[in-house]
Amino acid sequence: MSRRISMAVIRRMPKYYRYLNDLKNEGVSKISSRKLAESMGLTASQVRQDFNCFGGFGQQGYGYNVDTLHSEIASIIGVNRKHKAIIIGVGNIGRALINNFDFYQCGFTMIAAFDTDKAIVGKVLNKIPVLDVSELDAFYAENPFEVAVLTLPKAYAREIAEHMVRLGVKGIWNFTNLDLRIGDENVTVEDVHFSDSLMTLCFRITD
Amino acid sequence: MSRRISMAVIRRMPKYYRYLNDLKNEGVSKISSRKLAESMGLTASQVRQDFNCFGGFGQQGYGYNVDTLHSEIASIIGVNRKHKAIIIGVGNIGRALINNFDFYQCGFTMIAAFDTDKAIVGKVLNKIPVLDVSELDAFYAENPFEVAVLTLPKAYAREIAEHMVRLGVKGIWNFTNLDLRIGDENVTVEDVHFSDSLMTLCFRITD
Repeated sequence: MSRRISMAVIRRMPKYYRYLNDLKNEGVSKISSRKLAESMGLTASQVRQDFNCFGGFGQQGYGYNVDTLHSEIASIIGVNRKHKAIIIGVGNIGRALINNFDFYQCGFTMIAAFDTDKAIVGKVLNKIPVLDVSELDAFYAENPFEVAVLTLPKAYAREIAEHMVRLGVKGIWNFTNLDLRIGDENVTVEDVHFSDSLMTLCFRITD
Repeated sequence: MSRRISMAVIRRMPKYYRYLNDLKNEGVSKISSRKLAESMGLTASQVRQDFNCFGGFGQQGYGYNVDTLHSEIASIIGVNRKHKAIIIGVGNIGRALINNFDFYQCGFTMIAAFDTDKAIVGKVLNKIPVLDVSELDAFYAENPFEVAVLTLPKAYAREIAEHMVRLGVKGIWNFTNLDLRIGDENVTVEDVHFSDSLMTLCFRITD
């Protein structure tokens, strides 16, 4: 399905989901496309167009049912799939994700962390065992995972990413600031570029 | 200037800058809009349109001069402004940014970190002094900063963000996962939503 939908629409889905989650938590049961649009900085027609990519939900005149829309979008994103994921690199960013980030709510089960540092290998952080990078292949054979989160130094990023592609992962969540440019079209790379975000802020505050 | 340019174009500027940086480091001196477009996953006409927002640079037939284009875009983004910034919250994410992130290259000088934890206040991390949050106003009076990086727990995010707006910051780089929805149009909020990024990956790998 993802092939036919533009990246702009895809990137808005998590935002709708997050916003509907908030509404659910606040006990709101109905929302109009106009109100939804306003809260997201879109136009009502854009919201309806976005939803039409997935067949459209709910009755416009009445507004959308928050619970239904929330679960429709959850199912479109696939947050209930609980894809298996591992994380490679237990430095500050890796540790921050392991300790504080809710992978489960985003559709993933974090099953292991990997590092080369003997001081941390063998430990368990927030119920996640830290294994040696040399155990990756053996681990994958027993527990095939679909996504690798890369939080290791840039210098090792390409080598490890190519290793992951050979193993057969479907996705890489890339924090290494390296443009991986994986040639394999079966592997999706999602980059988190802190510098792009901060430079965007720089642009917007520069007179 | 930023008001007239669409967010999509603004968000592409750091990517151009990053890519031109790589070309410079590789010693490449000329690049065609077609080649630049290919590397960025755009069309040549989109690249030319993007650049036309800023008056357009270089001769199409010949290709762009990499050095010139790099410095034009640097000046558009404002990376040479070296806006003063502080960071609030020295947990894992805050520490990761202080120790490993190159604020200077993105247009900022990081001048201080703030936390409430007595165990860390008074220390110096990567040349950045860690001060007590109670010193924020006094510090601002002496060293007015333009940007606050929020890496503190979500529960304190709104209160601190409003405090920053009252002090007079121009921008907030928000890692707290809270939609701040600051009412002040003079303050730009740039959110880093890890969950949106991971849910986008989830969508793209879900059949």
